[in-house]
Amino acid sequence: MAKEMLLDRCAPLQRMQHLPSAQASGRVLSQDIPSPVNLPGFDRAAMDGFAVRSGETKGAKPNAPVYLDHFLPMRAGMPVPAEFDAVVMSEDCMVRGATLEITAQMHANKNVSRIGEDITAGETVFSEGHTFRPPDVALLSALGIGEVWVYERPRVAVIPTGSGLVPIGGRALRAGEAYEINGLMACIYAEKWGAIASKTEVVPDDEGLIREAISSHCNADLIVIIGGTAIGEKDYVPRVLEEMGELLVHGVRLQPGKPTAFGVVGGKPVVCLPGYPVAALSDLYLFVRPALQRIGHRSDWVPRVSAPLARKIASRPNYLSVVRVVLKDGQAEPIMISGAGILSSVARADGFVVVPEEREGLEAGETVEVELFE
Amino acid sequence: MAKEMLLDRCAPLQRMQHLPSAQASGRVLSQDIPSPVNLPGFDRAAMDGFAVRSGETKGAKPNAPVYLDHFLPMRAGMPVPAEFDAVVMSEDCMVRGATLEITAQMHANKNVSRIGEDITAGETVFSEGHTFRPPDVALLSALGIGEVWVYERPRVAVIPTGSGLVPIGGRALRAGEAYEINGLMACIYAEKWGAIASKTEVVPDDEGLIREAISSHCNADLIVIIGGTAIGEKDYVPRVLEEMGELLVHGVRLQPGKPTAFGVVGGKPVVCLPGYPVAALSDLYLFVRPALQRIGHRSDWVPRVSAPLARKIASRPNYLSVVRVVLKDGQAEPIMISGAGILSSVARADGFVVVPEEREGLEAGETVEVELFE
Repeated sequence: MAKEMLLDRCAPLQRMQHLPSAQASGRVLSQDIPSPVNLPGFDRAAMDGFAVRSGETKGAKPNAPVYLDHFLPMRAGMPVPAEFDAVVMSEDCMVRGATLEITAQMHANKNVSRIGEDITAGETVFSEGHTFRPPDVALLSALGIGEVWVYERPRVAVIPTGSGLVPIGGRALRAGEAYEINGLMACIYAEKWGAIASKTEVVPDDEGLIREAISSHCNADLIVIIGGTAIGEKDYVPRVLEEMGELLVHGVRLQPGKPTAFGVVGGKPVVCLPGYPVAALSDLYLFVRPALQRIGHRSDWVPRVSAPLARKIASRPNYLSVVRVVLKDGQAEPIMISGAGILSSVARADGFVVVPEEREGLEAGETVEVELFE
Repeated sequence: MAKEMLLDRCAPLQRMQHLPSAQASGRVLSQDIPSPVNLPGFDRAAMDGFAVRSGETKGAKPNAPVYLDHFLPMRAGMPVPAEFDAVVMSEDCMVRGATLEITAQMHANKNVSRIGEDITAGETVFSEGHTFRPPDVALLSALGIGEVWVYERPRVAVIPTGSGLVPIGGRALRAGEAYEINGLMACIYAEKWGAIASKTEVVPDDEGLIREAISSHCNADLIVIIGGTAIGEKDYVPRVLEEMGELLVHGVRLQPGKPTAFGVVGGKPVVCLPGYPVAALSDLYLFVRPALQRIGHRSDWVPRVSAPLARKIASRPNYLSVVRVVLKDGQAEPIMISGAGILSSVARADGFVVVPEEREGLEAGETVEVELFE
């Protein structure tokens, strides 16, 4: 399948960098981390009470108290000296002068967190490939690990093409023109998905200029070209890929998103998205996101919910279909506007449903997985 | 319920700020946006072909072509001049000298995207309260909307307390001490949940100093105090809240997380978290996240998956229990380590399952919703 052909050419990044642990949330660890210390670092009282020797408490009961001469007041979190091995809770004892009257028998380590009980020095705390979350950063800090090695964030070069496109914030549009918006959308998503994205100027429909733009971005880990992929006389991009390197795929059975192409130039994967924004968005989720995950060693989930379909969905047989839906009253309501240019349908949508190739649509009431737009 | 008592005192923020649209992703719109223009801004060819007058194509069929004198070559995206009202695809016609032979009847607007078909000038494109996603930013840009008004991000002040706590990266620990890690965890989560977080120095267990720390952070939209909430002689925090303002709740039926308190000081909500990291984490998800959502006008979902339980979970009746789980072979495996101090259990967990108060545990094989740690 097309996606696998792309992913086969996306190599997990090997470049690493050193970071303060406090900045590691969301980053991917590039080597195993053994704990430098025990956690807790000492036998620790788990309760307020008194440290005692468990052997001396034998037989203690409410109606048969035992009296101890050796004991030490404790607060939860304090170290329990080596001569003691248990903590009796305040409820189960009473100080009588220099003596402690206790009414419960203690076993060894009762109410004591033993040294290394949580983590033993030398034990692997996190393994290579782990994506740090906030509690992981807390654990690193608890262990006194101030810095970590992580994989660098993948670099993505986004190259928008098309002669009728005007940069956002540029001059007012003339008839036949549109603002170049897919490049911005691709960059924001790439950053959200863990990459560092940069966008070139809009490249006109000119084979030489497209070639030049690709050449000058072969230091990126993934190149995303937008527009110029349909099958027609002005669609230079796949032809340029073929000449500069390898064209892996041109045209996929995806609706919207048929005019998609994948290639490799200078060893770097290139994804060519259609210029229609709704199709470009499908491609970003179906191809660019998994490519970036693979390059960046990540496996985060797209947030999703299950919901019954409010109405049936028709789809083209043998095509994977991406259908935008609105979540309303616990149901997924398909937005059945055809036309990959209808951007307002995306703004109204909460997410999308993927109809598999082997289905010719989905029935009303059928439970579907809705992937939510992030 | 405790959470509702807290949320009742969390007012949605009214402060707004002006932002370039390209920076609006993830931010919440503070006013309705009407479209300044039509989209498309002109009648636009949806296909490559020829612009024609549909009335002149009547009866055209493959075996009964019609010949037109008035037509204009078109590429998809080009404006269709007012004298024409349809575009015939290249496949359905042939140029013969100055005449176009067409073999398909066109109806009005065939293959034409009419002006304003996607969005009409004046139509509300996004409503107050909408959280912008990347395609929304693309749509704003397509409409030439360069700046938007959004709600400010809530300000959160995090105040860690406890005399045995040493700042992260500070000196080596002495027996009985630990690094203060909950404050860092709370800050990273607050930022992830859309807030701007700042953390004070560790405040010792001293009523006067805690009072001072709260006073000097009443400009925050939410105050999070960590530690000093258990019921005992040194647990100053709830007492301080009572004296400075209002103590709403002290102690909740949550496991772990019982020693939680909520209050209001100077009109600002205050959440007091237990000092044990696992309990603090439960509280962050169960109380701080919804509080920040309410203050910040947000409603994003926690990413979650459904999975059958690999083993039964026991839980304390009449308590809401938060149980960490690992996802393994499509099942949710509970991590049954008791002790809210066991931070390594969180590092091993993929997420958590909430056992409702009315259940005394969950059965093996039962399908549960796992909320994934972000």
